[in-house]
Amino acid sequence: MNFFSGLLNSLFERTSNLLEGYQASDDKLTSLCEALLSTKGEVSGIAISEQILNHYRRLDREDKRAFFIYLLTEMDIDVTAISSSIERYQRSKETTNYRAFINAAQPRRRNFFRRLNEVPGATFELVSMRRDLLSLLAENPELGVLDIDLRELFISWFNRGFLVLRPIDWTSPAHILEKIISYEAVHEISSWDDLRRRLAPPDRRCFAFFHPSMPEEPLIFVEVALCAELPSSVQDILSDGREPTPEKEIEYAVFYSISNCQQGLAGISFGHSLIKTVVAELSQERPKLKHFITLSPVPNFARWLARQNIQDGPDMQPAEAFLTAHPEEVRALGACYLLQAKRENDMPVDPVARFHLGNGASLYQIHEGADLSPRGQKQSYGLMVNYLYEREKLIENHEKFVKDGDIKAQPKLHELARKYKDKLSEKS
Amino acid sequence: MNFFSGLLNSLFERTSNLLEGYQASDDKLTSLCEALLSTKGEVSGIAISEQILNHYRRLDREDKRAFFIYLLTEMDIDVTAISSSIERYQRSKETTNYRAFINAAQPRRRNFFRRLNEVPGATFELVSMRRDLLSLLAENPELGVLDIDLRELFISWFNRGFLVLRPIDWTSPAHILEKIISYEAVHEISSWDDLRRRLAPPDRRCFAFFHPSMPEEPLIFVEVALCAELPSSVQDILSDGREPTPEKEIEYAVFYSISNCQQGLAGISFGHSLIKTVVAELSQERPKLKHFITLSPVPNFARWLARQNIQDGPDMQPAEAFLTAHPEEVRALGACYLLQAKRENDMPVDPVARFHLGNGASLYQIHEGADLSPRGQKQSYGLMVNYLYEREKLIENHEKFVKDGDIKAQPKLHELARKYKDKLSEKS
Amino acid sequence: MNFFSGLLNSLFERTSNLLEGYQASDDKLTSLCEALLSTKGEVSGIAISEQILNHYRRLDREDKRAFFIYLLTEMDIDVTAISSSIERYQRSKETTNYRAFINAAQPRRRNFFRRLNEVPGATFELVSMRRDLLSLLAENPELGVLDIDLRELFISWFNRGFLVLRPIDWTSPAHILEKIISYEAVHEISSWDDLRRRLAPPDRRCFAFFHPSMPEEPLIFVEVALCAELPSSVQDILSDGREPTPEKEIEYAVFYSISNCQQGLAGISFGHSLIKTVVAELSQERPKLKHFITLSPVPNFARWLARQNIQDGPDMQPAEAFLTAHPEEVRALGACYLLQAKRENDMPVDPVARFHLGNGASLYQIHEGADLSPRGQKQSYGLMVNYLYEREKLIENHEKFVKDGDIKAQPKLHELARKYKDKLSEKS
Amino acid sequence: MNFFSGLLNSLFERTSNLLEGYQASDDKLTSLCEALLSTKGEVSGIAISEQILNHYRRLDREDKRAFFIYLLTEMDIDVTAISSSIERYQRSKETTNYRAFINAAQPRRRNFFRRLNEVPGATFELVSMRRDLLSLLAENPELGVLDIDLRELFISWFNRGFLVLRPIDWTSPAHILEKIISYEAVHEISSWDDLRRRLAPPDRRCFAFFHPSMPEEPLIFVEVALCAELPSSVQDILSDGREPTPEKEIEYAVFYSISNCQQGLAGISFGHSLIKTVVAELSQERPKLKHFITLSPVPNFARWLARQNIQDGPDMQPAEAFLTAHPEEVRALGACYLLQAKRENDMPVDPVARFHLGNGASLYQIHEGADLSPRGQKQSYGLMVNYLYEREKLIENHEKFVKDGDIKAQPKLHELARKYKDKLSEKS
Repeated sequence: MNFFSGLLNSLFERTSNLLEGYQASDDKLTSLCEALLSTKGEVSGIAISEQILNHYRRLDREDKRAFFIYLLTEMDIDVTAISSSIERYQRSKETTNYRAFINAAQPRRRNFFRRLNEVPGATFELVSMRRDLLSLLAENPELGVLDIDLRELFISWFNRGFLVLRPIDWTSPAHILEKIISYEAVHEISSWDDLRRRLAPPDRRCFAFFHPSMPEEPLIFVEVALCAELPSSVQDILSDGREPTPEKEIEYAVFYSISNCQQGLAGISFGHSLIKTVVAELSQERPKLKHFITLSPVPNFARWLARQNIQDGPDMQPAEAFLTAHPEEVRALGACYLLQAKRENDMPVDPVARFHLGNGASLYQIHEGADLSPRGQKQSYGLMVNYLYEREKLIENHEKFVKDGDIKAQPKLHELARKYKDKLSEKS
Repeated sequence: MNFFSGLLNSLFERTSNLLEGYQASDDKLTSLCEALLSTKGEVSGIAISEQILNHYRRLDREDKRAFFIYLLTEMDIDVTAISSSIERYQRSKETTNYRAFINAAQPRRRNFFRRLNEVPGATFELVSMRRDLLSLLAENPELGVLDIDLRELFISWFNRGFLVLRPIDWTSPAHILEKIISYEAVHEISSWDDLRRRLAPPDRRCFAFFHPSMPEEPLIFVEVALCAELPSSVQDILSDGREPTPEKEIEYAVFYSISNCQQGLAGISFGHSLIKTVVAELSQERPKLKHFITLSPVPNFARWLARQNIQDGPDMQPAEAFLTAHPEEVRALGACYLLQAKRENDMPVDPVARFHLGNGASLYQIHEGADLSPRGQKQSYGLMVNYLYEREKLIENHEKFVKDGDIKAQPKLHELARKYKDKLSEKS
Repeated sequence: MNFFSGLLNSLFERTSNLLEGYQASDDKLTSLCEALLSTKGEVSGIAISEQILNHYRRLDREDKRAFFIYLLTEMDIDVTAISSSIERYQRSKETTNYRAFINAAQPRRRNFFRRLNEVPGATFELVSMRRDLLSLLAENPELGVLDIDLRELFISWFNRGFLVLRPIDWTSPAHILEKIISYEAVHEISSWDDLRRRLAPPDRRCFAFFHPSMPEEPLIFVEVALCAELPSSVQDILSDGREPTPEKEIEYAVFYSISNCQQGLAGISFGHSLIKTVVAELSQERPKLKHFITLSPVPNFARWLARQNIQDGPDMQPAEAFLTAHPEEVRALGACYLLQAKRENDMPVDPVARFHLGNGASLYQIHEGADLSPRGQKQSYGLMVNYLYEREKLIENHEKFVKDGDIKAQPKLHELARKYKDKLSEKS
Repeated sequence: MNFFSGLLNSLFERTSNLLEGYQASDDKLTSLCEALLSTKGEVSGIAISEQILNHYRRLDREDKRAFFIYLLTEMDIDVTAISSSIERYQRSKETTNYRAFINAAQPRRRNFFRRLNEVPGATFELVSMRRDLLSLLAENPELGVLDIDLRELFISWFNRGFLVLRPIDWTSPAHILEKIISYEAVHEISSWDDLRRRLAPPDRRCFAFFHPSMPEEPLIFVEVALCAELPSSVQDILSDGREPTPEKEIEYAVFYSISNCQQGLAGISFGHSLIKTVVAELSQERPKLKHFITLSPVPNFARWLARQNIQDGPDMQPAEAFLTAHPEEVRALGACYLLQAKRENDMPVDPVARFHLGNGASLYQIHEGADLSPRGQKQSYGLMVNYLYEREKLIENHEKFVKDGDIKAQPKLHELARKYKDKLSEKS
């Protein structure tokens, strides 16, 4: 416990009443936006920003759309200024020329967002603003340009070095835990008792990344089971009434659930860092831990299978029908899916596989009947998969994967996949 | 006290031993830099970044210069890519075109610095790196280009919304206080006893801004004296053995010293925010506080005076000589300097005046014999000045100042300045 | 946030492995007890104490009884030593004589308990030990002697000055909140949602006393509703879906539930202090709060009524039957019970009344249908009562109450009580 | 960092304005004391206690003496009540009889002090009150009776289980460090720089005991040097400009200074616990630490020597003169002093020796020229001594020491002592 612990608290106790008396000459949102970027904005501090955020919060969907289009069109980059400044820089690489280009290359709205972010607590509001924006992209694809600016800012603001790893356990504050319950995206947390079973036992751990400027909001969290043996299903991990694994028998750290919490941070990836940081944390805490491994879902398996035909003896039939007749073949078909089903860019169809293999993990085991929840049954016929994190092999695995699309997997799994390799074909 | 207090602590307890075994194929700094931006960098996490920072720390001045030039030349923007992408965007404002431009418009070194910043504690090292860079600018002005990139990043990272205001007092940790002693730039703190006199009494306050990623390093701090009357000298404020002002008599909050702490953050201004935030903080804490006012130095007065001649009766003589003969005229000459000595852009010559007037403060009083320290005597003949912060007038004052160069000041001061207005002339 | 925040944490991180190798020559509990009080105990630190506590934890009820009897008989005071030392002191009031008496007047077991309490975390174990002891008192009344010693120690250790008031809210740690759920003794908390309704809204507060040596265990807590008007039932307070009272309309702080948490601290009263401390806390926090008042149960009303006959016109009938026929008379009968039903010592029969009136509060209102829970119906026909805490009258009310048995109440209530005053008579 | 960290803070933020309006009917101190113990005291909470403490603070020495005598005489035990109650208990060991005796055996002033201690922050004031009392004992030995009562209370309140061990380092708050400077009793801390040398280097540690109810006041602290070899003088440890011992070479933890901070806690020994707790703490933190050893002063050596004659050849001469002539014999004479100079009860004359040998440590080495400070020269001719703490031998050493007066020491030291054993004789 030391001095610095109080730093964060202060963030939220801050007051900003210095210029509370400030009133924009007219209270339209766009006037406020212009005022913020004018000389008034410089001295009025965060008063105008607060007004804008208050305004924004009360907008309905249509007004938000209009606001975004305003930012898109009225605060865009000045193409002419860019062209002429980059030309000058090309001619002479002087500092002033570079500065002119860098200034021109940033649309006014970047500075606008930065000013908004000066309000204590605004970071979370801007993340919510991007969530709103993303929800409009399908209808207004032109807003993608605006999203690029927000994303660029978020990449700076949510730089990995600013994130803080925090253990989440049964002594954590209830209002944080309630968010863990609501954000869990993989294996639903059904009640506070369910949560307790995941957090309180000594062989269960949970870690989340937080950002100092939105300390009440986890960004991403991972749930970990410490086990004596590799569990073959998520039911084993989540079962009620089980005995905690004795400290001395623990050999495996099983990452059985990773959930992103903020839709407004989509595409700003924290998962890679989280796993590595937690592996480092647990390694240091328990030098005897031997294996770091996931128990992961196979989210698109059923959807993929529905598009396959299979050669069963002389006949060709839908793969789904085949699997219904031969349920014992599910692991083999799962192996086919994971190892052979590729997108055009030679990357696996399965997003979870892409994530872990891209991280340098290897495919270790496939378990049937491993997720008996309705969702697990529906999306993957109950299949779950282990990805193994071996420190010394991460870079090698990663490089082969991204360069050549090579998937590192246990030989048995490659063998299993070969079983139906030539018999599967995409439905026409 | 709550849950989040621990967030910051965690930052520095983090370990990063996941990939500790990683060895760059050759250990040259530039190879490491390239590796960091390659696919290896993605998965090796912060291991390569740590190596680069370790490397950098051991470089001497010449090697640092070479390293900066490498970043300047080898990681510059691609002018052709920019030109073609901005052209495409001009033709069609599609998201992909915008993304292409935004990516092209950022030199590779920006991403390089972002990756370095992923190492816990790296922010302070990057700030130190910029300090090194700034110290080379005179000799290598071309490095100004590199500085623009660092500065841009710092502006995002040190966004006002991320800064935390912390009171500094006699219960603060010694290792922070020792930095306050060493960073005080206006009125030197001569000893721990001197520090105690400034922090411990109930009518003395000090506040600093911190950044969550470098919690052991104040960024800027301000010292405040709470007074019953406006003090006419800094000796009054700092005198040993004085009685604290009784709580009920306090009417003035006097900002008598503001010091920037990090040379590497030069040009990223926190002073405006700090004063406004402290005014807000104190207003809330003590609703009865009436006046927020500075007691500020006049740093360039003597230097300016040395360049003036003065019409004294029929004679023209050096203004310095005149002042030596008529020491009682020092306030009048000070008023001339502050109100009339302008740069080409019509802004005052005095940097402290530019700062406070630009903030919307007004010039309130000029005190002679107000800083009897050797430095005070030398730079300003002992003159000090009050700038008054009146909330409701800040925007108006600021706008008149930046638009028309109008300086808001007490009428008496304008009058005083008029005394020698026409008699002063620049030495030829 | 400051330095001292960490003090408490330290308590539980402490290790005591200095003498871990210590082995009592034989491992009988009584041998350990004797060793603890011998010279070995002095130097072996807390090792023997830890062994005793470990031992004790594993005892069954019969063994605990035997252990207590051992402490009772083998570690009693030495009557002869007391008699002779008090005689000497009477003859000469010298320090050495007084010391001899004071030492003799303390049974060896007091020192024994003090030594046990040196183990970090032992305080809670000793509280649990007393809970065990109290549960045996009915069968072994002679153990009351032992209880007097424990109680004396607890009165010192739990001195009001050592207790810490902590707000309990929705940001409190889950493991504390789960204890609040389980310890609530007045209006059962049925779920985490129910708890959230009591803690999260801005017009709901909860405070608990903690002891620094058992920081995970609340000692007593009180739940408070901030209201615009005096609520007439607990259902109003606990109802789901209600709107929080707007800040500006709040005038009443209603203490609607006070629960003791530790059976082992029975008879060491914290309730008086808790109410007064919370009143002080809330007064300071919200200077506009006007009324501090309870909404209290009437626990023994039904039991008392069952023992009464009532003169209903010419007939005498059981009061219960009368009330069933005339439910609108419940408040009048409640007033009779509270104001007139007395124990031999002229104190009210109702324990809650004794508590609040003894505190100096006055009886303010009686509400019917105010507690519709099964328990509320059963013990008090749904009646609840307000006791009013008026600072300036507390001492006067208290003195009249304890000296003369005078109950300060609203005149209307006295009137109401008179209605059946002469018609009620104890069943024979 | 967790929830409980805030508990302590709360202690000092507490307010007690509930009964602020309370006015004792007359404001004499004794009237207040009686009111506190009357029924008014029960309900007025801590208001009267605060008045008493405020009163007490303003008393001069004579008034304090009178106040203590009042407590001594007017709040004494009731000898008759004790005699009769103990008699009744002897006849029948019933709970009520025991309770009657226990109540009678406590003078009213015990309860008085307990009530005072209910005021937040009062514990430190009561400790100061005892300091005042102790300073009067020489003149008023009868007050020793009063001291016994305070001491008894303090033993309960400062139970080892309630103390908290805190590291003190260069990140500790300045107002705590300033107390460390002023309380250091063995090797004076001459400046903040001197303090920094003792706290900041990685091979220097300091630990203090605190009590949760007076968190700004260390009770006792110990300074530790982590060394590669056993240092032979305190100058080695405190020298400016030395290089910190590399982490890997550290084998010795040298306790070179232990200071009690509170005169008012004289006789309530924390030193035993502190050393053992710090040994446990350091052992756990650094499993490779091999030796725990003190570098201790020999405070009464010179005074003892001044009372000795020595047989030097045929002559008998004052030992001091002999030592002046043969300075190389100082270690031998030191060994004589430590091993052979005994009080009547067969315990060593040297108080530091009594403390460490009583703890179970053994005498390890004697160093000459080990404390060259004026005090060190004067009291012990520069001698210092190591006492060795070996966990597995503490109990055995302790038992032999307290039962038989046997001093465990290195054989060489016994040999050295024998050199002058028969030649020394007390001056007549």
